[in-house]
Amino acid sequence: MSSFNTIVSLEEARRVAIFGGTHGNEMSGVTLVNLWVKNGAEIQRKGVETKPFITNPKAVEKCARYVDTDLNRAFTPENLSAPQGDNQPYEVQRAQEINGIFGPKGSPDAYDVIFDLHNTTSNMGCTLILESSKDHFNLQMMNYIKKAIAPSSCLVLLNEHPLLKYSTSRSIAKHPVGLEVGPQPQGVLRSNIFEAMRVILKHALDFIELFNEGMEFPSCTVEVFRVLERIDYPRDANGNIIAMVHPNLQDCDWEPLNPGDPMFQTFDGKTIRFQGSGTVYPTFINEAAYYEKQQAFVTTRRESLVASSIRKV
Amino acid sequence: MSSFNTIVSLEEARRVAIFGGTHGNEMSGVTLVNLWVKNGAEIQRKGVETKPFITNPKAVEKCARYVDTDLNRAFTPENLSAPQGDNQPYEVQRAQEINGIFGPKGSPDAYDVIFDLHNTTSNMGCTLILESSKDHFNLQMMNYIKKAIAPSSCLVLLNEHPLLKYSTSRSIAKHPVGLEVGPQPQGVLRSNIFEAMRVILKHALDFIELFNEGMEFPSCTVEVFRVLERIDYPRDANGNIIAMVHPNLQDCDWEPLNPGDPMFQTFDGKTIRFQGSGTVYPTFINEAAYYEKQQAFVTTRRESLVASSIRKV
Repeated sequence: MSSFNTIVSLEEARRVAIFGGTHGNEMSGVTLVNLWVKNGAEIQRKGVETKPFITNPKAVEKCARYVDTDLNRAFTPENLSAPQGDNQPYEVQRAQEINGIFGPKGSPDAYDVIFDLHNTTSNMGCTLILESSKDHFNLQMMNYIKKAIAPSSCLVLLNEHPLLKYSTSRSIAKHPVGLEVGPQPQGVLRSNIFEAMRVILKHALDFIELFNEGMEFPSCTVEVFRVLERIDYPRDANGNIIAMVHPNLQDCDWEPLNPGDPMFQTFDGKTIRFQGSGTVYPTFINEAAYYEKQQAFVTTRRESLVASSIRKV
Repeated sequence: MSSFNTIVSLEEARRVAIFGGTHGNEMSGVTLVNLWVKNGAEIQRKGVETKPFITNPKAVEKCARYVDTDLNRAFTPENLSAPQGDNQPYEVQRAQEINGIFGPKGSPDAYDVIFDLHNTTSNMGCTLILESSKDHFNLQMMNYIKKAIAPSSCLVLLNEHPLLKYSTSRSIAKHPVGLEVGPQPQGVLRSNIFEAMRVILKHALDFIELFNEGMEFPSCTVEVFRVLERIDYPRDANGNIIAMVHPNLQDCDWEPLNPGDPMFQTFDGKTIRFQGSGTVYPTFINEAAYYEKQQAFVTTRRESLVASSIRKV
């Protein structure tokens, strides 16, 4: 049985949220959502309620990634079911509040789609992040967006890794979509990055409207980059970083890294080479926020996923 | 009387400090100084005591610009003469400590040269920052460095503005030199920026050694960019930013901005043009740390300064 012959019938997507400020120093999402809170005309679509929402207002105010802990890792079952109270870290309290408004996570009452807007210091361009290879609605949306913005490109990162997947803010929704656009330094708003994010959102909302209006989307294949492994910076016995991302790798997100290719450069000038067994595609290279997570980049594998035909029920 | 005919006799520069971490999230300076604290062979020169020093260790630990207030604005006479005590902001206490070690500021006991290492998110390349057009030792050093690194370039920013000049960490020294290298996001270490900073420091220290050994440096002219004016982002009545640096200006540090040229782009797509009366050279364009200082960029004017001949006493 080929999935090419399957037509998946799905509920309309009537409730959509756009999150900004899950990390308070990623300025494109913060700025767009603040704009849309004031005037949402641009994100309204027929038959869709689109809600722009600042998820971590305290972090936004401080222009910091977070106050107590990373909100975009906080939507765990443990946190969401913990007793409410001021003793909890701010972001855990906030995750519970957000889950109350847009969830509960995993329930039929949860929002249909949540877009969560992020920026990165890495040279990743426009990247959509998915959490499941089985979400045909999202895969079709990715295909739609890729075609709509061509010849500009938009890559899809699939984080379905058993250990590296994390509990994102958007994971409350039935169809969670991360949008990561870079390079943009923390605390900075660049017009090119801001506009690229705005265009992707436009096409994503257009897709939802078309789907709700009854358009059928035929089966297609979508190229994704599946998260494989987290690579840390080289460190000494005390845990101090002793090397930088090699100039040949810096800014080369999504380009092939082959066994033997330069990966790091130590402060005394030695080259450290990639020791893997085959070609990988690194991304999130030298992202500022990931130093504390001990991650210099992640490796990915290129795959083609089949998206079944979809239409509304 | 032309200054071309003057020979200025100056004391040898025997005590030199290299400051890193004046802003704790500017990683090239932090990393270089930490390296040199462990092994200073590379920065030693005959007859010179070179001291690498982390100025704001608490900010470095947090990977933040500062803890309570900007250390690089804290070296005012008021702060340095304030009663010591734990009630003071951390950076004021720290400024007093640093003034005790490397100063007192303005006294014969102060260090001869302090290099203070900074990074910027702006596309400024290698920029040396001077605080006085009359410091012939520093002007000769700038000339030496510019020639030594050619065909790479290194620009000189002169902040001698009566209102915009501020009380830097390096201002304790007889010859204060800021080194600003970018673009590099806060919290990120890029190999190209790190290496560029290292090379400039090498040539600066070489110059000091040659001077101390008795080399005479003939009169020369040095091109500098003199700080003129601080330009803020356009804001609404509530003080919220309503426009971004225009794509034609973004990353164009040191390039001419003429009256009528695009300067900002509002979120609804309107272009705001430069209204000045003549050509200026913007820099520190869209620097992350300057949003809170209400500065989108500074304008400068290009000037040629004459450096007198110098030799040691």
